[in-house]
Amino acid sequence: SATGNSSANARLFAPYKIYKGKAALSVDPILPTFSKINSGTGGLRVDRCGVIMLTFCPAIAERKYDWEKCQKFALSPTEVGSLISMSAHGASEFYHDPSMKSSNAGQVSKKLSIKALDGGNSYMISLTVTNNILKSTERLNVPVTTAEFAVLKTACSFALPHIIGWDRLTNQLPKGIEGSPSKVNPKQHFDLEWDR
Amino acid sequence: SATGNSSANARLFAPYKIYKGKAALSVDPILPTFSKINSGTGGLRVDRCGVIMLTFCPAIAERKYDWEKCQKFALSPTEVGSLISMSAHGASEFYHDPSMKSSNAGQVSKKLSIKALDGGNSYMISLTVTNNILKSTERLNVPVTTAEFAVLKTACSFALPHIIGWDRLTNQLPKGIEGSPSKVNPKQHFDLEWDR
Amino acid sequence: SATGNSSANARLFAPYKIYKGKAALSVDPILPTFSKINSGTGGLRVDRCGVIMLTFCPAIAERKYDWEKCQKFALSPTEVGSLISMSAHGASEFYHDPSMKSSNAGQVSKKLSIKALDGGNSYMISLTVTNNILKSTERLNVPVTTAEFAVLKTACSFALPHIIGWDRLTNQLPKGIEGSPSKVNPKQHFDLEWDR
Amino acid sequence: SATGNSSANARLFAPYKIYKGKAALSVDPILPTFSKINSGTGGLRVDRCGVIMLTFCPAIAERKYDWEKCQKFALSPTEVGSLISMSAHGASEFYHDPSMKSSNAGQVSKKLSIKALDGGNSYMISLTVTNNILKSTERLNVPVTTAEFAVLKTACSFALPHIIGWDRLTNQLPKGIEGSPSKVNPKQHFDLEWDR
Repeated sequence: SATGNSSANARLFAPYKIYKGKAALSVDPILPTFSKINSGTGGLRVDRCGVIMLTFCPAIAERKYDWEKCQKFALSPTEVGSLISMSAHGASEFYHDPSMKSSNAGQVSKKLSIKALDGGNSYMISLTVTNNILKSTERLNVPVTTAEFAVLKTACSFALPHIIGWDRLTNQLPKGIEGSPSKVNPKQHFDLEWDR
Repeated sequence: SATGNSSANARLFAPYKIYKGKAALSVDPILPTFSKINSGTGGLRVDRCGVIMLTFCPAIAERKYDWEKCQKFALSPTEVGSLISMSAHGASEFYHDPSMKSSNAGQVSKKLSIKALDGGNSYMISLTVTNNILKSTERLNVPVTTAEFAVLKTACSFALPHIIGWDRLTNQLPKGIEGSPSKVNPKQHFDLEWDR
Repeated sequence: SATGNSSANARLFAPYKIYKGKAALSVDPILPTFSKINSGTGGLRVDRCGVIMLTFCPAIAERKYDWEKCQKFALSPTEVGSLISMSAHGASEFYHDPSMKSSNAGQVSKKLSIKALDGGNSYMISLTVTNNILKSTERLNVPVTTAEFAVLKTACSFALPHIIGWDRLTNQLPKGIEGSPSKVNPKQHFDLEWDR
Repeated sequence: SATGNSSANARLFAPYKIYKGKAALSVDPILPTFSKINSGTGGLRVDRCGVIMLTFCPAIAERKYDWEKCQKFALSPTEVGSLISMSAHGASEFYHDPSMKSSNAGQVSKKLSIKALDGGNSYMISLTVTNNILKSTERLNVPVTTAEFAVLKTACSFALPHIIGWDRLTNQLPKGIEGSPSKVNPKQHFDLEWDR
């Protein structure tokens, strides 16, 4: 491990959960992974982008859910952008093929639908998983209140810079403080357009 | 204690206070608590969700409040979502029973009401505490200006990711920087839908 | 000093500056100060709330300003709330007496006016300083574009939780991770309404 | 280097990329640089403001881009303010001369145009680079969906306080915790208007 402070590295489980009659929805940000750049400057590059993981679990009794039969849908940064910009009359649909570009492509398809109802007074989030081999379709519906949707939007807006890796900016020390103070340059950021 | 840096662990008191004629309202975020996951991976799980604590204290004289007779109401994340998504014509009511699921259930009930007045030019935040044993009702009203409500919304939006534990994402080191750079995978986050 | 890492304690000067024909406006957040609570728990309390400091400096020639003759106006958290919630047709006025509650009260008064023009296509920010002893009035006007006002709103919204001390939440370690995992309590935050 | 923790200093590459048919757009925040203030107080001053760097690269085949022929445009904080406040019917144009105030001024000019289409259902971001010596004009167009634009707005709003240096506020220790608790002063921030 890179550090003796193991709690800093520890995976954190802090899903936001919405429990409803027929299914539960759990929302959980997954951070990007980074890799070192070979050049020896110690630079880091985002290797695999983060996601907001949605996990839908079917109800088996009142307030009981079957956590073994959950279905997942990983929202990419742009799909998160679609969620957080949704208006009170909007609707979004996303399609994923978990085996995309492999030999199993097309066997299973997932559709996530987010729909505003009643002019934004509530929302329906639905995951449909179609298995074309087994000829089966599973559909998990979670009705979401305006208040719950506001939590989703606020939490996902907060998480978005983190899943694209921009929050790492905060942790960096300021550049240039070791050198002698450079003179203030009136054409400062135009330089960047040439030099970089 | 887990660390020699006691100030990092210290409880911080930084309530946002609104002093009005008949009562004062103090708004204070309470962080979630975490517990270690048994698996030995050093993972952490949110144990008890955070809240935004509202404390109402009655006035006893001009600019003097009776801090011994305050009443509390703890906004859950979803209730915070309701507050921050309130429109200039909206209203919200929340009901809590502090003894819920105990043998004292129903003895005391609390109602918090937040109402926009004048098309959003001001707001009224009221806490009503009813004691069904003593047959008593206490009502504490705090009128709130648009500017004060904007502080509440902005501060609660900021605090929301913290009370659900998502701010802890920022403190983690990037994953994967120790290993060799993995190849960029075009179907990156679809994998997550299978593997996890 | 509390720490060997002096750069962490160093005062940072990072004003956002708007240079216009007759005056320059510099916007700079000032953090709150904290004091230790006597109880020995190591707790901290906000002692003096932070502000957003506005500094207006008169022009003396083209792109030259007289930095010795600047006038200051310190926006409180609630005044910041007023700024960030201003609509495209709104206006705000704030009055400060820098000698309030002293024997010099009333000698000098400051008025800050923020006004949307043209349905939000531009803004005028004006500081008027009246000295009732010298019978003098100084007025400093800074016209602000929509883009500059968007920077002000975004930066002040970011700074607001910091000036009320809520950003310190982020720096705290999670509570409860040292103890044995507590059982999940279905009435979790209702407890807080009793116990605290 | 100021620290033994090299990963904290490492340059991070985490661009948000939008790949389209004729060009790719990469969006990347660049932090400000700081210099020490001579006074010996250990204070830091923003030396060179940060930017959001936009990099446009032309397509050479399906899903292939010529990374050697990219053109850059560095958005200043105020230009970022213009982007994040753009309405669903708005348009912005920015002009840069990368050789401004040098003897080469006027040889090359760059125009960035951001235009909402279809009432905010999509956006067109275009960079036009005109070389007045070579009599050449290059134009790179990237159509952007509402969802992608929402990511841009959210990520740039997040980055804005960082590029003006205000995020450094978070890293500072609270002031005043070492001294004896000062008495609470009812005219607290008015003092600041005199003393500073």
